[in-house]
Amino acid sequence: MKKILIHLESDSKASIFDQITAYDAGADQVLAYGGVQLEEVANLVYGAIFTRGGEGLRNTAVFIGGTQVPAAEKLMRKLLDTFFADFRVSVMFDANGCNTTAAALVNKIAQGRELKAKKALVLAGTGPVGIRAATLLVQEGCEVFLSSRQLARAQEVCKHMEENIGVKVKPVEVVNPEDVDKTLAQGINIIASCGAPGVRLLEQAAWASARSLEIIADINAVEPLGVEGMKVTDNGKEREGKILYGAIAIGNLKMKVHRAAVQALFERNDQVLDFASIYALAKKMEA
Amino acid sequence: MKKILIHLESDSKASIFDQITAYDAGADQVLAYGGVQLEEVANLVYGAIFTRGGEGLRNTAVFIGGTQVPAAEKLMRKLLDTFFADFRVSVMFDANGCNTTAAALVNKIAQGRELKAKKALVLAGTGPVGIRAATLLVQEGCEVFLSSRQLARAQEVCKHMEENIGVKVKPVEVVNPEDVDKTLAQGINIIASCGAPGVRLLEQAAWASARSLEIIADINAVEPLGVEGMKVTDNGKEREGKILYGAIAIGNLKMKVHRAAVQALFERNDQVLDFASIYALAKKMEA
Amino acid sequence: MKKILIHLESDSKASIFDQITAYDAGADQVLAYGGVQLEEVANLVYGAIFTRGGEGLRNTAVFIGGTQVPAAEKLMRKLLDTFFADFRVSVMFDANGCNTTAAALVNKIAQGRELKAKKALVLAGTGPVGIRAATLLVQEGCEVFLSSRQLARAQEVCKHMEENIGVKVKPVEVVNPEDVDKTLAQGINIIASCGAPGVRLLEQAAWASARSLEIIADINAVEPLGVEGMKVTDNGKEREGKILYGAIAIGNLKMKVHRAAVQALFERNDQVLDFASIYALAKKMEA
Repeated sequence: MKKILIHLESDSKASIFDQITAYDAGADQVLAYGGVQLEEVANLVYGAIFTRGGEGLRNTAVFIGGTQVPAAEKLMRKLLDTFFADFRVSVMFDANGCNTTAAALVNKIAQGRELKAKKALVLAGTGPVGIRAATLLVQEGCEVFLSSRQLARAQEVCKHMEENIGVKVKPVEVVNPEDVDKTLAQGINIIASCGAPGVRLLEQAAWASARSLEIIADINAVEPLGVEGMKVTDNGKEREGKILYGAIAIGNLKMKVHRAAVQALFERNDQVLDFASIYALAKKMEA
Repeated sequence: MKKILIHLESDSKASIFDQITAYDAGADQVLAYGGVQLEEVANLVYGAIFTRGGEGLRNTAVFIGGTQVPAAEKLMRKLLDTFFADFRVSVMFDANGCNTTAAALVNKIAQGRELKAKKALVLAGTGPVGIRAATLLVQEGCEVFLSSRQLARAQEVCKHMEENIGVKVKPVEVVNPEDVDKTLAQGINIIASCGAPGVRLLEQAAWASARSLEIIADINAVEPLGVEGMKVTDNGKEREGKILYGAIAIGNLKMKVHRAAVQALFERNDQVLDFASIYALAKKMEA
Repeated sequence: MKKILIHLESDSKASIFDQITAYDAGADQVLAYGGVQLEEVANLVYGAIFTRGGEGLRNTAVFIGGTQVPAAEKLMRKLLDTFFADFRVSVMFDANGCNTTAAALVNKIAQGRELKAKKALVLAGTGPVGIRAATLLVQEGCEVFLSSRQLARAQEVCKHMEENIGVKVKPVEVVNPEDVDKTLAQGINIIASCGAPGVRLLEQAAWASARSLEIIADINAVEPLGVEGMKVTDNGKEREGKILYGAIAIGNLKMKVHRAAVQALFERNDQVLDFASIYALAKKMEA
């Protein structure tokens, strides 16, 4: 029985990235749908859950992707609502790569280290990857600060996280180098830089002189990188006494995590691979 | 050479149900198209008939699906009109599952039995499954009654069937329990219940007390079922002295018929698998 | 690692012809996209170049198709512009089959022959196949004339070819039999007839009496053929002292060239298979 992955997203053209990765992970066939409307989800799901029965059902799974994370979250909720009793298949959520990227980012930081009571700053953390990375860092035992250029935006996101995910994260406004220095001076040990491609967030002078700082990771692969003096290929490289992880090192791990997650989908028919379970997979893989 | 099934339908998203079933039936690759317009059919068909020649041509086939049966019938006619000489591939029509469902329904009723001169009532029979089931029952030798809540609708459908398929079926109006009793009192031996999901059509008191009645089959899998006292898993179960076939028993056979039909497509390049030929396949399979 | 071909075109439904041919050429999976807009190309290309690295990258390739050649040429330019450094995959351009058809047409004419200093007329040559055939004939050493029913159109195309492809071709107006006779009287040795399906371009009396004429090839497979007295299956057949190649003989070779080109895509990750490289493949294949 072929392993069939149903790829759903709201963008007009289904992602080639996710399809190739699925095939490389061992999916036999991807049924890819772009431009998926909420009202089309139920019918598509019925096709997934009513065709194969019993043991066979684990050979069908769903991937929710696309660049629009909020729209994808709505598709995900609708999908999970359509399942009932044993009529369900495993699902992976990775719109815009947010779950696999956050899992790889935090795993690079956490691997072989004890993070309990460390102070972590998620720079430019109000996006999908930042929110997920902050949550995972909390779960690893860190005290987490989440920054935005607008305090109100950071506060809004932190409130949302407390209410919906149940984690406490401290909002911080970071606009200029003085804000950075002030924040790092609170004893930050870890920086996870989650800014947009090509946007510089942290000068070398700032991070090099921050006494408490131990680890910096940055997901921006486009020059200028988020962290000055970082190289995209840095993979635990020591610079100025700090350990650095660049976007390509994180990206390579992200690809492995993505493939491992797709493989895991076909082990059972009742899994929901969201950020926490994908991170759990990432940790196991590195061991 | 890969067995390629071209799936065409007018619904915006090509059915996942039909694609998974095609793969499970042994198709190597499904090329699925939703939102197919009539004027696009010819170009798609040329791609099917002009690529592989001679013996190879039987490795390409077309499936016409979608939830809209009348639109699918137009696609089917256009498709068949586009073939010429030996430039043709095998085609299966199963929009909304109507052919495989009707074939499974009637085969459950007919298997190992002589139906000649039996009286059969197709309840709520004006939809695609009802029309096909009624036709197959006539071909098995039954005298067939086809009911609707509106006599005019039943008459219209019966007239259409006589003119287009060449079978005679008697229109009946069934609105309330008295109508049911009156109809069953004409000596009905078989009831094929073809109503919509979740719509009760027949009370237990009515069918239990109908002397002539021998067999009841119902394709409605959603509670309340079409037939009170029926279980979806009934598969030749005797209740109140009648033999019952529920929606899951029929559905399981439908899936087998669907897969057998897809497999048959690739045996030759000139088959048209419509309700009669799909029913013939179903009968052979059960033997 | 699966050989994945990404099929992009601007027509609303991705060509079945090209997909089946790709599978027959050994592609493991075709990801087919119809209705591709220019602004969607970059994202799709990123999915192709950022998923597999190093040696693996040659297992991904792109095919640009569709019936609209100018729109396809824009997709092609955008695609090539999106590649950078080693982040590229091999690409084949064959919108409306123009490259494989031109390659097969000219290869039929050139195989085993010395064309240097021959005079060739590309009849109705202003379309995509005609332009490419004329270019290849120039590259084979011919003096090439390109005809249209409107001199201005022929002149425009020849100017475009000189400026963009760097080849010199002579524009000719051919409206009626007298024009044909006058043109052939210039000592034409070869006619490549590239008219639309079902349009007669050349009477038998004209070509039979043309002393200098040696070879006639015609890509029109629909009666009336472009060349009177030709048969679609003529494959080097001698008639009236001339060698004839009909549309089916050319079409069969075209299919082989198409498949060979798809196979070649997966040998390296940096090939651009356009008309010249596809013609080179055709020549090698016939050897």
